[in-house]
Amino acid sequence: MAHRTASDLRTRIPDGGRRRVLVEDPSPNVDGGRYPAKHVLGDRVDAECDLVADGHDAIAGRVLYRRAGADMWQSAPLAPLGNDRFRGSFVVDALGVWELVFEGWIDAFTTWHRGTAKKRAAGQSIGVELLVGAKLLSEGAARARTRDPAVVERLAEAARIVADTRRDPNERFEASIAPDVVAAMREAPDLEHATRSERPLSIVVDPELARFSAWYELFPRSAGDGIRHGTFADVERRLDYVAAMGFDILYLPPIHPIGRAFRKGPNNTLVAGPRDPGSPWAIGGEAGGHHSVHPELGTEADLRSLVRSARQKGLEIALDIAFQASPDHPYLKQHPEWFVRRPDGSIQHAENPPKKYEDVVPFDFECEAWRSLWAELLSVVLHWCDVGVRVFRVDNPHTKALRFWEWCIGEVKARHPETIFLAEAFTRPKPMYALAKAGFTQSYTYFTWRETKQDLTRYLAELVRPEVRAFYRPCFWPNTPDILPEHLQHGGRPMFLARMVLAATLSSNWGIYGPAFELMEHVPRAGTEEYVDNEKYQLRAWRWDDPSSLRDAIAVVNRARRENLALQRTERITFHDASDDAILVYSKRTEDFGNVVLVAVNLDPKNRRGAFVDLDLRELGLEAGQSFQVHDLLGQTRHIWNAGTRPWLELDPTLVPASLFVVRRRVRSEHDFEYFL
Amino acid sequence: MAHRTASDLRTRIPDGGRRRVLVEDPSPNVDGGRYPAKHVLGDRVDAECDLVADGHDAIAGRVLYRRAGADMWQSAPLAPLGNDRFRGSFVVDALGVWELVFEGWIDAFTTWHRGTAKKRAAGQSIGVELLVGAKLLSEGAARARTRDPAVVERLAEAARIVADTRRDPNERFEASIAPDVVAAMREAPDLEHATRSERPLSIVVDPELARFSAWYELFPRSAGDGIRHGTFADVERRLDYVAAMGFDILYLPPIHPIGRAFRKGPNNTLVAGPRDPGSPWAIGGEAGGHHSVHPELGTEADLRSLVRSARQKGLEIALDIAFQASPDHPYLKQHPEWFVRRPDGSIQHAENPPKKYEDVVPFDFECEAWRSLWAELLSVVLHWCDVGVRVFRVDNPHTKALRFWEWCIGEVKARHPETIFLAEAFTRPKPMYALAKAGFTQSYTYFTWRETKQDLTRYLAELVRPEVRAFYRPCFWPNTPDILPEHLQHGGRPMFLARMVLAATLSSNWGIYGPAFELMEHVPRAGTEEYVDNEKYQLRAWRWDDPSSLRDAIAVVNRARRENLALQRTERITFHDASDDAILVYSKRTEDFGNVVLVAVNLDPKNRRGAFVDLDLRELGLEAGQSFQVHDLLGQTRHIWNAGTRPWLELDPTLVPASLFVVRRRVRSEHDFEYFL
Repeated sequence: MAHRTASDLRTRIPDGGRRRVLVEDPSPNVDGGRYPAKHVLGDRVDAECDLVADGHDAIAGRVLYRRAGADMWQSAPLAPLGNDRFRGSFVVDALGVWELVFEGWIDAFTTWHRGTAKKRAAGQSIGVELLVGAKLLSEGAARARTRDPAVVERLAEAARIVADTRRDPNERFEASIAPDVVAAMREAPDLEHATRSERPLSIVVDPELARFSAWYELFPRSAGDGIRHGTFADVERRLDYVAAMGFDILYLPPIHPIGRAFRKGPNNTLVAGPRDPGSPWAIGGEAGGHHSVHPELGTEADLRSLVRSARQKGLEIALDIAFQASPDHPYLKQHPEWFVRRPDGSIQHAENPPKKYEDVVPFDFECEAWRSLWAELLSVVLHWCDVGVRVFRVDNPHTKALRFWEWCIGEVKARHPETIFLAEAFTRPKPMYALAKAGFTQSYTYFTWRETKQDLTRYLAELVRPEVRAFYRPCFWPNTPDILPEHLQHGGRPMFLARMVLAATLSSNWGIYGPAFELMEHVPRAGTEEYVDNEKYQLRAWRWDDPSSLRDAIAVVNRARRENLALQRTERITFHDASDDAILVYSKRTEDFGNVVLVAVNLDPKNRRGAFVDLDLRELGLEAGQSFQVHDLLGQTRHIWNAGTRPWLELDPTLVPASLFVVRRRVRSEHDFEYFL
Repeated sequence: MAHRTASDLRTRIPDGGRRRVLVEDPSPNVDGGRYPAKHVLGDRVDAECDLVADGHDAIAGRVLYRRAGADMWQSAPLAPLGNDRFRGSFVVDALGVWELVFEGWIDAFTTWHRGTAKKRAAGQSIGVELLVGAKLLSEGAARARTRDPAVVERLAEAARIVADTRRDPNERFEASIAPDVVAAMREAPDLEHATRSERPLSIVVDPELARFSAWYELFPRSAGDGIRHGTFADVERRLDYVAAMGFDILYLPPIHPIGRAFRKGPNNTLVAGPRDPGSPWAIGGEAGGHHSVHPELGTEADLRSLVRSARQKGLEIALDIAFQASPDHPYLKQHPEWFVRRPDGSIQHAENPPKKYEDVVPFDFECEAWRSLWAELLSVVLHWCDVGVRVFRVDNPHTKALRFWEWCIGEVKARHPETIFLAEAFTRPKPMYALAKAGFTQSYTYFTWRETKQDLTRYLAELVRPEVRAFYRPCFWPNTPDILPEHLQHGGRPMFLARMVLAATLSSNWGIYGPAFELMEHVPRAGTEEYVDNEKYQLRAWRWDDPSSLRDAIAVVNRARRENLALQRTERITFHDASDDAILVYSKRTEDFGNVVLVAVNLDPKNRRGAFVDLDLRELGLEAGQSFQVHDLLGQTRHIWNAGTRPWLELDPTLVPASLFVVRRRVRSEHDFEYFL
């Protein structure tokens, strides 16, 4: 065209036009890399992406990974999975944040190789092809310069043979496809036109405890005899009690001085007597605030001692982070700028109109002084880290700014990457997920209110979706000091046992509020889902050694969790059809089927129920016709079942309302002795 | 801590910590905004995102949108859909690229409003609340300053009344919730801490023809009598023939000079006689290359005339863009740098080892001179745009660099946003999708080989997934000059009719290669899925007026498409269970159920088949028990059916193997006269 020359058209050509490979749909991916995916130390990370290019050339790629901030990348090759999807795997061997990017490129040597082999097989001349191949090998040798000189020499030698027109073409081609030559070429890819994924993805690597843990919540105030105020020393004396049940984490409600103003009396009454201890969540008084210890519990030194003793018994002490103040908190005088002041001069207390919570004053995350507020709150967490605490349960995190948590947890974990934060948020699904993305290690869930087979099945399906499990680690609690669900009020011992087995085997993280749970406390404050005579507002004298306690049953289940790897992850769960609505059957397995567990729970606490079960044999690692053993770790009974038939399962709530089977396959020893493994 | 002060901790606090709302999961979203979603002129765009925040405050938001490059944003408010999802809608009223971002913020006025109303309802004092509200109204008035002074005054007046402690609290509260005050506050939001979505999303707006089109492919060489070489003038004389069948686009294979070297003879033989015309895809010879017209077809002026005449008859002329060269193409001498030169000095021809295509030389998109190559290829498309062509079918785009297409199509559409590109790529799914993302307006599909009920149902489900339909517009072709599928070879007239109805009603874009299709050409070159005596290599004398031609049936179906909006989109399709495997039943509807079409096709060309059909009443806009009329546009028969019963459908392939029903609901006129609409 007269009015338009080709060189006019060049002005808007972007760089990188020869990068023919596109890197798409990378994974693990939380919001396109905005947030990290979660892993634990020692995990194999399977990093996947699509590598898409024009034409029919061979495509190669690699995943580059490093600890965030490291100078050097490590790499793992990407292997094709079919349908243009590729995977590379690597092991994360250090705590903290990692990042990864993908690279893809056209693999000219493999392309050449394939085409030439086909031509040779079709009897066509490959003389010119061999010259092309020799050039590719020479270029490979040049790229390999910085590496092992032996490799360079091997490629150069192959190039000479392939280029040598005096030799037989077949001999020359064979020289190009010698395994060591092919491997050396793979190690020296031509990356000039390689494409990198647009945005690095990130992974946070936590300790194993982040994924597999059993929590026990205890009010130190009642850890003594329940008449005088309990102390950290009393808790220390209870450690064996907790450890014997097989828990990993002992979580204490807030340990800070409790405010006097508007202190709540027993059963959440508005007026407290002079000896009523008040709610531990009304933090701050004369004796200090979030950096201080409630004098009646002891001293910071006592807490250090407790943390140390607990760790010796395999228990981590978890503290409660409740970022709110009682009206007596020193912050109100020292930092009035962190609170909402109303037009009448008063400070805005917590409320959910028309309800008022006058014993609690919230921080104003929109205040002008937000930066000093953030810094102060971070200093609180770091203070308890300095005392030795590494696990925190965070109270109502969904009422504090999401961006604050992302920053605060990031700062804590930059210093102490082994730290674990459990989000106690019972709110809408998306804010709960947003907290997990922002950095919470584990999260409370709706399990407490999921009762029917359909409820539980659907909820687990939601939680183990790849998009969700990438960042959200559920922690199942049958009860909390705030929640005595209706089924525990009326279901009796069978319901306590069923909910315990469900929580501990559906989810790899679970917890109970005790001793209320194992002692089967079930009386609510009238008309509520809350405990009567709640420890939140008073001391309780617990019958620690009650013979009807569930402590032994809990110990059996926690031991089964420790001994069966399949129970140490929430994913890889399968629900099996059972012919009765009250019988819930599910299995879990390790990736390699080395450990398979089958759980059956009778959800009806009043009636003996039975069901035929349609086992999904593939998920159990079984083949039709095979006989196998199920070994019930709760009842210590063993049965031989035949894969392909529908076993009949009957569960009597007056005995044990659940079975926790290990599935053992029949194996034959070299001496022809048959046994179940 | 002695060693750490709160101010030390402030150093790494990011900006924007008071932006409490997160904007997540925005849509329409193709790869996180990397590629545009596709719309057509006049579409209402439903833009959605999650707005997630801490706490219980009211959240508000808006979507900002503009033509790419425009200075000013327009905005539409976001309304809640539940589960923290929000939607804002706007109409795209200009062709080209649009961009959109989301904004979310805490709505302090609504939050105040809700809380105060609850307190008032509970009989609590709201005196202090009213002072808070008065302040919010004053601030709103200040923000509204740049707007209508009447609005400012209205807000200021409301603020005065609400602040006036001499008045009755109820009167004051009422003043704050007057509808015009609430509306004015909504129009003057406090955006100081509003959050914007991270990356703008983009939308490309095409003409309606991009979404709803019927293509007819014709070889001009046979447009005359098939003995002398056809010309553009001959094609012009065939326009009425094509238009009468109801097509929108008349697509011509490449119109450029054809190479002599290695020219293929009839039936793809290796040696061409002196009078054999050769393949139009072997582009370039003495008479020129991609900018030139094959002399035997006429001149560029003839083409201009054809484009003009076609447009007068409602037809767009589509040209074929085949970016490859015959060995005689002028480019090989003028720009040898654009081709791969082999070690023996020869130019690399096209091959798919061991197959060789010696009449075609591919461009080397990895060459050093790639920028001048890109510019030249763009100049080709722009040249034919200058001639008046606006629709292009692109040959084998998947063998040219994806980044090239993204740039090339972007450059063409920046100048001519009404241009349509159809990607003729039959390859793996991901490269096909990648081409659509890169900018192709429509795409060839696997429809040609989807035969069974299960095949077709699954394939449609894949194509209408929201993630796919956002960028991929399928165009269904029962045949092409390259593909005579086996079912057309053996299925006779019933199969031609069935495949025509399927293509034209499953997909809103469809096309045929004619007159081979309507004349039911079905003889393959032995052992292939290709036509014998293919026009690609020779002229054909067609029996244009054959009385057994399917032209009338095609005209009926294309008319039904034009008259029924439901058929003008591929999405909103529902498959209905039919009791016979050969009977495929599906319906399409408009968003408002104003037009509902039900299609039934007998996939068995040899046997009369019947089935009971389980109609999905909701998708037909019907209620159980309602009687309704189905009006078959193919047979012109009408039946009254009763919703909730299973109608029996029987289709005889010796008559018409399909029904194309319009579903008409019974309505009653104001004079109590009943009819079907």
